[in-house]
Amino acid sequence: MEKRICKPTLLLDEEKARKNISRMAAKAKKSKVRFRPHFKTHQSAMVAEWFRQAGTAAITVSSVDMALYFAQQGWKDITIAFPVNLLQIDQINALTKQVSLHLLLESEESFNFLKENIAAPTRAWIKIDTGYGRTGIPAGSSEKVLALAKMLANSRNLRLSGLLAHSGNTYEASSPEQIRQIYNDTVHKLNALRDTLNSAGLQPIEISVGDTPACSLVADFSGVDEIRPGNFVFYDLTQLSLGSCSQEEIAVAAACPVVAKHPERDSIVIYGGAVHLSKQSLLQRDGTAIFGAVAARGEKGWGSLIPEAYLKSISQEHGIVHAPPALLQETRIGDILTIIPVHSCLMVNLLRDYYILKKI
Amino acid sequence: MEKRICKPTLLLDEEKARKNISRMAAKAKKSKVRFRPHFKTHQSAMVAEWFRQAGTAAITVSSVDMALYFAQQGWKDITIAFPVNLLQIDQINALTKQVSLHLLLESEESFNFLKENIAAPTRAWIKIDTGYGRTGIPAGSSEKVLALAKMLANSRNLRLSGLLAHSGNTYEASSPEQIRQIYNDTVHKLNALRDTLNSAGLQPIEISVGDTPACSLVADFSGVDEIRPGNFVFYDLTQLSLGSCSQEEIAVAAACPVVAKHPERDSIVIYGGAVHLSKQSLLQRDGTAIFGAVAARGEKGWGSLIPEAYLKSISQEHGIVHAPPALLQETRIGDILTIIPVHSCLMVNLLRDYYILKKI
Repeated sequence: MEKRICKPTLLLDEEKARKNISRMAAKAKKSKVRFRPHFKTHQSAMVAEWFRQAGTAAITVSSVDMALYFAQQGWKDITIAFPVNLLQIDQINALTKQVSLHLLLESEESFNFLKENIAAPTRAWIKIDTGYGRTGIPAGSSEKVLALAKMLANSRNLRLSGLLAHSGNTYEASSPEQIRQIYNDTVHKLNALRDTLNSAGLQPIEISVGDTPACSLVADFSGVDEIRPGNFVFYDLTQLSLGSCSQEEIAVAAACPVVAKHPERDSIVIYGGAVHLSKQSLLQRDGTAIFGAVAARGEKGWGSLIPEAYLKSISQEHGIVHAPPALLQETRIGDILTIIPVHSCLMVNLLRDYYILKKI
Repeated sequence: MEKRICKPTLLLDEEKARKNISRMAAKAKKSKVRFRPHFKTHQSAMVAEWFRQAGTAAITVSSVDMALYFAQQGWKDITIAFPVNLLQIDQINALTKQVSLHLLLESEESFNFLKENIAAPTRAWIKIDTGYGRTGIPAGSSEKVLALAKMLANSRNLRLSGLLAHSGNTYEASSPEQIRQIYNDTVHKLNALRDTLNSAGLQPIEISVGDTPACSLVADFSGVDEIRPGNFVFYDLTQLSLGSCSQEEIAVAAACPVVAKHPERDSIVIYGGAVHLSKQSLLQRDGTAIFGAVAARGEKGWGSLIPEAYLKSISQEHGIVHAPPALLQETRIGDILTIIPVHSCLMVNLLRDYYILKKI
């Protein structure tokens, strides 16, 4: 491996990723919910094929451009899980002609624009904020939800599919138990809203949820119709710290050349910085922030995390690894260190080109 | 402008950038130091031409790939201001044949490798750590510096140019006065090392420094031979908060579509997140972190920062703007908000394609 890698490189362990895919697909199947994985994590036609081989037909993306990309790759059922960007109406209309397109709505303002400008029948989901506080109609505002649902029910080209939420607040949970509580609370709130809509004669109303922490930790998806996790295909240090995955399930890493060593300050300098790994950090229990961890060499790919070896700071191209004495001693300039990312989605978005480790 | 922009777009105010370039070039000329601007900030052949028109002949980059890119654009004198990545020796050797190449060395280990493997005469600078603590030989270790300098002096293909430092610790300063103190301390330490080398018969020994905060705030560069600032061409919120620039000197911004509004929580949701702006945050006096600020519309380009309007959080594609009541009231879904970045280098690296605002 190292002979061919000479700069920061995105390593992907195909076996691990395929296992992550098949595990989540099986779980969805068992709960009889639609599996609509979020493809923003990998943004890759190749990884998308692994999903297709596992039976996936419906997908989620986070931008119109990503929807266009996967439409070109033959995907026919696409949800853009982002408040509709009205300025891209031309591209959205191009998509409505190629695929079964699902949009997210949360305001009368956007509804009025789309009602006039959408070119072909399109599915719409009402985006509900169940506690994350990023975007969506607050779950408590059932009159607003009902009003928008009625507008959709009376629209010619927009067809109401149901209620959609992203409980990103699971990322701030302090235990797996708390993640399960947030999930249960989300499902409870969405079902209450569904009851309200059903009572007003609006049905069927589907429910779509799906953050990776909850989808990884919840065993049964009763009460929902669709799950949309994304990060689980690769996982990362953030998910590990939340308890949503094990070390062995993390499927991506960055191979980074060692360019300097500073034993006097317990550090190794790598070629691998913010333009490769992103500036996302993870707060440790002692209050310090880390930007990645270091994995040991493996026979193929990489092994376990090395205790006390982590990226303590990064700038544009430099990464500064805090290195325990044994790592410092065995590492030479020109070696490759394997960095496990804090947030795989952002690292993948930066590095883009996959170096596939095949083990199957 | 807004009619053509439909997704997060990098705005560049050409007049401001050209003024930033000519101001710094004139300052270097007045101090009779070589101006070797860092091109990692813009990574653009077009912006590079603006530098060339201002008289720039020597440049700095932060990777071998960037050196290859600018060599292709006709630049002939390039410093790779990063500890040499030995794994890219083939590309480095290709460069040595095309340009006057300058490399950074800080260890015997790297020196020994290069001595054996470098194909053509190449300039080498000894990287000194004057207090930032990222990489380099600590300024206090004068014997180490002297030992490496002697090895270089006796080498056939590596020619010692001098001592180079990046005082990135200016970014942690709490006042312009402290930035000037760090600069003076850096120059003092490097001159003391130069004296040591001169006393050992090694000369001439040049001194190269250059972070944007210091280069912006110091009036006179006596005692150094070369400055290498980069960020000053665009500046950003970080520089503004350090006092290295004025609002009017910030030359880049991101135009981001408004996709949702939440008056009940004082927020506007924009299409513009971590994959556009980076996750770099800036700590405010009250302890909160922000990810960008909002500028008012300008006749061409943008106007002043809107008080109390800032990006309070970002995820992969979403940006959540804290919006004061007037901004909330005047903003409609489908409008464009102009975001001033925390760190222009990282935003430019993500957005890449410049939308040029010409005023000249």
